[in-house]
Formats: sequence, C-alpha cells, structure tokens
Amino acid sequence: MLNARPNAEQPGTYHPRTAAAIRLACRRGEVTGSTAGLAPGYVQANLVVLPRQWAAEFLGFCALNPRPCPLIGMSEAGKTALPTLGSDIDIRSDLPRYCVWRDGRVETELFDISALWRPDLVAFLLGCSYSFEEALTDAGVPLRHVETGVRVPMYRTNIPCVPSGPFTGHMVVSMRPLEPRQAIRAIQITTRFPAVHGAPIHIGHPQMIGIKDVARPDYGDAVAITPDELPVFWPCGVTPQAVFEEIRLPFAITHAPGCMLVTDLRNQDLATL
Amino acid sequence: MLNARPNAEQPGTYHPRTAAAIRLACRRGEVTGSTAGLAPGYVQANLVVLPRQWAAEFLGFCALNPRPCPLIGMSEAGKTALPTLGSDIDIRSDLPRYCVWRDGRVETELFDISALWRPDLVAFLLGCSYSFEEALTDAGVPLRHVETGVRVPMYRTNIPCVPSGPFTGHMVVSMRPLEPRQAIRAIQITTRFPAVHGAPIHIGHPQMIGIKDVARPDYGDAVAITPDELPVFWPCGVTPQAVFEEIRLPFAITHAPGCMLVTDLRNQDLATL
Repeated sequence: MLNARPNAEQPGTYHPRTAAAIRLACRRGEVTGSTAGLAPGYVQANLVVLPRQWAAEFLGFCALNPRPCPLIGMSEAGKTALPTLGSDIDIRSDLPRYCVWRDGRVETELFDISALWRPDLVAFLLGCSYSFEEALTDAGVPLRHVETGVRVPMYRTNIPCVPSGPFTGHMVVSMRPLEPRQAIRAIQITTRFPAVHGAPIHIGHPQMIGIKDVARPDYGDAVAITPDELPVFWPCGVTPQAVFEEIRLPFAITHAPGCMLVTDLRNQDLATL
Repeated sequence: MLNARPNAEQPGTYHPRTAAAIRLACRRGEVTGSTAGLAPGYVQANLVVLPRQWAAEFLGFCALNPRPCPLIGMSEAGKTALPTLGSDIDIRSDLPRYCVWRDGRVETELFDISALWRPDLVAFLLGCSYSFEEALTDAGVPLRHVETGVRVPMYRTNIPCVPSGPFTGHMVVSMRPLEPRQAIRAIQITTRFPAVHGAPIHIGHPQMIGIKDVARPDYGDAVAITPDELPVFWPCGVTPQAVFEEIRLPFAITHAPGCMLVTDLRNQDLATL
C-alpha cells in the first residue's frame, strides 16, 4: 500500500531537465512513477538497501557478479547521502517509489522510506540498462518495448551467480529482439558500457540459458519477436531481487520497478573508449 | 596448369618464422600451398592485379566497399615492390600460387607470374581474415574449419556492393559457426580489426542475406553447425573474384585460394583500441 503524496502527478507528465531537479521532484512527491526517459543523458541506478550485517557479503556478491550487479555507488551505514553520485541526495526520498521486502517478498511499496530508516542501513546503487538503451537509441537501434510502451521483458535463467555469504541464485536477464545487423551493432555499443551491464550475455537460443518460453517473461512485459529477429539477452539489475526471493531474505528495500535513482553522472562518462 | 617449381614441397611442411623468410621460400619454390598458419602474428593479404586502365575504378570499388575489400597496400603501375608492406617484396613471385583470370574465369594457376608481368599492371592488397582468426584463436574462440582441417565456407549473398566503373556485384561472406557467447566475444574481437573485414555483417538468419542452403557453400568447404550454435558471417576478400566472374572481366591475376602474400605488418598493428 502506498503512503500518501499530496502533490503526486501521473508518471511522465513532469520532465525537469536536470538530475537534481528530478530528485527534488521525487522528494516533493511530484514524480511517483517510472523514471524512464526523464533527465536524458543522466545515469539512473538500481537501489538495494540492506542492514550492515549483510553489507560485506552483498558487496562481495556484486564484485563476483559484476555483469548483472555493476556497483556504481554505496553509502556509509546510516548515511543517506551519496556524494559520488550527486549533490544533496537523500536516498530515503529521492526515488519515486520503493519496494520493502520481507522474507523474500515485496511487502509494501512506499514513496518515501524515511519512516523505515535505521542507522545500520547501507544503500547500494547498481548501473541500469537505461544508460545503454539511450546509447542504442542514439545509434538508431530500435527498442521494441520502448516503441510499444511496455516494460522490458526479463527472465530468470539457469546461469548461476557466484555465491557470496547468504546471497546465491541465478542471473536475471532482459531481452530485446533485434534484426541481425542491429544485434551486431548493439553488441558493439553496449560493450562500451561495462558499468551498466555491458555486452549481451546471450543471443539467439533462449532455451540454452534455461528460458522455456520467451513469450512468458518472469518480470516485465512480453514483446513480439519477428522471424527476421534474434532475441538478445543482457544481464539485468533485477538479479538481486530474484536472489532475495530465492533465499527468502528477511529484509531489504529496493527501488520499485522502473523507478530509479537519477544521478548527476552522465551516461557518456560511463563509456569506455 | 601449374608451371614447374623444382624445389616444391608439400604445403605445411615448411615453417620459417619470419614473413620475409616465407616470401623468400615462395620465391624459391619451397612453399607452394596455403599460407594458413605460416609466420604467426604477421598480416597476410589477398592479391588482385589489374591493368592500369581499371585501377582507378577498382580503387574506387575498394573505397566504396571497405568491409569486403579493405585495401592495405597498392603498387605503382609496373612496379613489383610494395615497400609499405614489406622489405624486398617481388609481387610476381612472393606468393605460393596465383590464379590468372580471363573473361571472368580462372584460366590457369601459376607459381610465378613473371612471364605475364607488364608495365601497366597494378597490384592491390586487401586484408584477410587470417588476421582476425588469429585474434579469435588467441581469445579461445574455436574455429570449426581450422579444427576440422578444411577451408572456411564462403557464400555469395544478396548484399549488393556499391558499384564503381565496371565493377559491380554482390558481397561474398565467410561463415564460422559459434555458440552464442563465443559469437558475442567474436563480434567484440573482430570489431577491433576493421582493416581485415572487422565485425560480422550478419548472424543467425542466412536466408535474410540470400543464402538458401548453408550446407552448400559457393566457395571453400561445408562445416557442421550444431543446434546450440549460430552461423556468423563476415565480409570476405573473395568478393572481387565473384565480381570478376559476374562482369566477365577480360583479365586479372589474383592469389590462389589460401595462398596469400605474407607481409611484414603485424596483426596487432592493425588492431584499433
């Protein structure tokens, strides 16, 4: 159940230009939905908040699984600022919407987590595919889920993550159907962005990575694949959430789907080469 | 019909270590077969020799079609040296074997073209996939045709080349079957080598580029594709020969299949990034 935000508007109706302005709008309750397409050019990030007791193990999980979990920022325990990601960030209020996890399930969604904040909480920020999707769009590579206005389809796979402490499970991937030439171009482009999942992890044979029916994603929405296209799969930042489900983690807070932290980093600053 | 070479040995029995030594061995008739695997690390090149009257148009063809025809060297008319590609090259004798083309067909194969040399002939050297295959092998990407000891399969496609003067036709591609992860890695690796065809031009759906039966290549030998693999297609330096066939060019000389010019350039020197 969502907590009240007096100034809440429909997602997508508010388009401030800078990342700081987006964060302030979130804090004021003026942005409550997906951040897709907001503040073009700025890096957006997946959020994971965990008690300090699991911080080292989760940090290890990110280090050992950098493709799905590219760590781009981390708070000090109890501190709500993330100075390396942006000026004046308050991680308790600067995302549009949060999920509170209990025993591996989403218990509630909140616009603001100040009431749940504790001195032992640590925030982890992971790179997000919005950054490489912008690079693909700039290069003229079409994205079916964007064109059709749905969420990107995501799938649990049989690709094991490297375990770290209690954190163990399988990689989640996102899928974008592309024509062969676009797929080759997309591999080249996303290779330049290792901090936001980088190159695809699979192309063409979903069953090889444990996906039985590509028309039935485990998260997000299904999109059509034409006979001339190949399904192209990237590691996905939803992986930690699938791990929390798998291990029935007692407590965590994450961003709500699509509702990311908008940072002051530029997508182009993440590009290698 | 081959002209006699008194010292000819079986291909593959002679492995001098430097490019200059290979060329000398060719000149002496000690190497008469494929140069695949000889002088590891050195760039090998496709050869096209044409009368000067067609040089500008062929140069234009290479410039307009750099993916299949990456020009890495060119002689002055009548000159047999190629100082930018190696010390003391004599293009008339320093390849193991040549094809003489008349009216779009191979009329004869020769070990040495000195008897045919004329003051109006110009030699063009085009990058060759041996360079990127070395990079793939170094990266642990397996090559089926190498493992099974056959020539790489090549296909005529429906991809039109950009015409230049009399030179018009369709791109020839080479094919290597790869598992999806290997294919992604191969795209990354070959992207670094634009001077030797660069990234693949197609992946996964041969019929989209006019290949009716991938088991029946137009040049080279067929290789098996397992259900877990994707066929990956690269632009191929045989393209000019297909063009000569298509336009029934009155006269040309090329390298014989697999019998390249071994240059003093290093494969790694061709790598971008």
